[in-house]
Amino acid sequence: MKRIALLGATGSIGKNCLDVIRRLRSQFRVVTMTTNNNTEILAEQAEEFRPTLCAVMDPHKVDDLQDRLSERKIQIRTGPEGLLEAATHPDTDLVVNALVGAVGLIPTIRAIEAGKDVALANKESLVMAGEFIMNLAQEKKVQIIPVDSEHSGIMQCLHGNRREDVARIILTASGGPFFNRRAEEFQSITPQQALEHPTWNMGPKITVDSATLMNKGLEVIEAHWLFGVPISHIEVTIHKQSIIHSLVEFTDGSILAQIGPTDMRLPIQIALTFPERMESPYPRVRFEQTRMLTFEKPDHEKFPCLRLAYKAAQDGGTTPAVLNAANEIAVQAFLENRISFEKIPSLIEETTTRHVRADRPSLNEILTADRWARGYVMKQLP
Amino acid sequence: MKRIALLGATGSIGKNCLDVIRRLRSQFRVVTMTTNNNTEILAEQAEEFRPTLCAVMDPHKVDDLQDRLSERKIQIRTGPEGLLEAATHPDTDLVVNALVGAVGLIPTIRAIEAGKDVALANKESLVMAGEFIMNLAQEKKVQIIPVDSEHSGIMQCLHGNRREDVARIILTASGGPFFNRRAEEFQSITPQQALEHPTWNMGPKITVDSATLMNKGLEVIEAHWLFGVPISHIEVTIHKQSIIHSLVEFTDGSILAQIGPTDMRLPIQIALTFPERMESPYPRVRFEQTRMLTFEKPDHEKFPCLRLAYKAAQDGGTTPAVLNAANEIAVQAFLENRISFEKIPSLIEETTTRHVRADRPSLNEILTADRWARGYVMKQLP
Repeated sequence: MKRIALLGATGSIGKNCLDVIRRLRSQFRVVTMTTNNNTEILAEQAEEFRPTLCAVMDPHKVDDLQDRLSERKIQIRTGPEGLLEAATHPDTDLVVNALVGAVGLIPTIRAIEAGKDVALANKESLVMAGEFIMNLAQEKKVQIIPVDSEHSGIMQCLHGNRREDVARIILTASGGPFFNRRAEEFQSITPQQALEHPTWNMGPKITVDSATLMNKGLEVIEAHWLFGVPISHIEVTIHKQSIIHSLVEFTDGSILAQIGPTDMRLPIQIALTFPERMESPYPRVRFEQTRMLTFEKPDHEKFPCLRLAYKAAQDGGTTPAVLNAANEIAVQAFLENRISFEKIPSLIEETTTRHVRADRPSLNEILTADRWARGYVMKQLP
Repeated sequence: MKRIALLGATGSIGKNCLDVIRRLRSQFRVVTMTTNNNTEILAEQAEEFRPTLCAVMDPHKVDDLQDRLSERKIQIRTGPEGLLEAATHPDTDLVVNALVGAVGLIPTIRAIEAGKDVALANKESLVMAGEFIMNLAQEKKVQIIPVDSEHSGIMQCLHGNRREDVARIILTASGGPFFNRRAEEFQSITPQQALEHPTWNMGPKITVDSATLMNKGLEVIEAHWLFGVPISHIEVTIHKQSIIHSLVEFTDGSILAQIGPTDMRLPIQIALTFPERMESPYPRVRFEQTRMLTFEKPDHEKFPCLRLAYKAAQDGGTTPAVLNAANEIAVQAFLENRISFEKIPSLIEETTTRHVRADRPSLNEILTADRWARGYVMKQLP
């Protein structure tokens, strides 16, 4: 029986994680659950999974949560302290970090400090503080297990192989909804168009990141830290069918690829059960139905976010944290119809260019850079 | 330094194996080498690799070999005993069995009995006596490492995973030169046409087996024994690009696929270095050049050999050995223009139908069935 802390239970990954656990009840117990402000869904989930502790980040919603769960003997917490208490609860073995955005960083660090394995869906943790987190995980002898389908694929391909035998990692990208749109027409892209993602069903921020290819850029940085492979050995290929999630080429030229249905529950289950596997009822890939798999180079001119992410990763230090923060604010502004789709990369580029980088940064320097970048982008918004 | 016995040095796999070793001289030493009757090439190879012992199967060629190597202090042997001495030489660690046909069976068994790991390119060993060989290997605690690109791929996908987590194995087939030819036109296929294989460069017997799909049928049987997976969990898909060599689906629905260039030296190198890897200069797969990968179901009506192999595998006992023997004689007769291409499967089917199967056969029963089948097919030839 593995005991789970689920941070971000009411989001897309959180709900899918509970769906996996619902089917594997004999293997897992949810001990803590958190939400940003969705007390209605969290209360329903708590009724079903009966955790020991529930936390809602927004202090204005704590009374509502208390009311909804008044019949149950469940401890209720709020604010950042509540989130961290959920992340470090002594009765848990594995922390599933399904928080979206930079808010996920400190819970990841505190969970590792508390000696918990972390199933990490929050890519910002590693984008902002990859070196810090991986060193800490090694020191505390805990595992950081990826939940992202791409990184789950790499983990599966690498399992049993020596890291020094890896020549390159290839992440696949669906290309997003605008892959075939002409660059001249990018100006007119609306949030509604960006949110219509062809293959994966995800939250709005990540869906926009998929449309700009920033999502893939963040994944490149994440893969670099997770697997200890140089940025220059990590490539991105556009694979519209989203069936191959990633590939690893070894120094002898042999390649292993991980293939699966486009169902988030599969990489979530793999993260929960790793290194073992359990049966699943998810749809199977049928090759004779698929027939064609295509691969194309990404267009860095049309999608500057990918280029910016590679550059930030090469620069290192606090720059990836700044890239991430600028992207969060810019995407939010785009979703609120305050800036155009094209303005997202130009705001990010301006911010990373203006940033004065700190190398081998402390956690404090990372958080300072993050705040600076957010403030800087805010000031540029109309 | 791994010390190698190379059985079948002058064939396609043997030459490629020496090409790999030529590049990795500091890692390997060839101690014994054998040929069926190609003393000219064996002598050249021996001049270069300076083995301790050379064997030529054909006793009429032993004097010729002796003459060619008279300047060297190399022991010369001949006949089946010479082959077995090469296979069990005390100064070797790994026996590379690159013999073609049923003649490879006994050397495999003797090598295992002598406690040698075996890199197995001779698929007939496992097709004829898979259960016997795998039990013996387990008892002697030696590894049977596949050299075939498809089985090498499966081995790489399975490495680090639990056998009980495997749901199915999918072997890819190029489809051979006649995949798109209409069934009515099979009658007119000539040996020359069958020998023009689109992707792999192999010996004539295996090339004809690729054209009939019997090669894939034998590989299904081989995979069954090598990896302990039921025949019903092993599938074949036609993948014309021959870039994905095989796939393993796990019980959770995740699939690992092995991808590589169509260069036999890669799986040979992997077999020699397994479970480690070494750098190689072989061509790399470039995804953006390939772009399209296709998958199609094999047509069991047009290619009855695949169906016959599945049936023989399901029947078990001595039937796969009979299938293999009937196929060897029928293919030889086709290559000699004595029978048509279509006659190959019908001769095999007649032979396996007539055969009275022995279950859980002894080695003697297997060899008797093999001899019976050869004699039976010979009698049917015009």
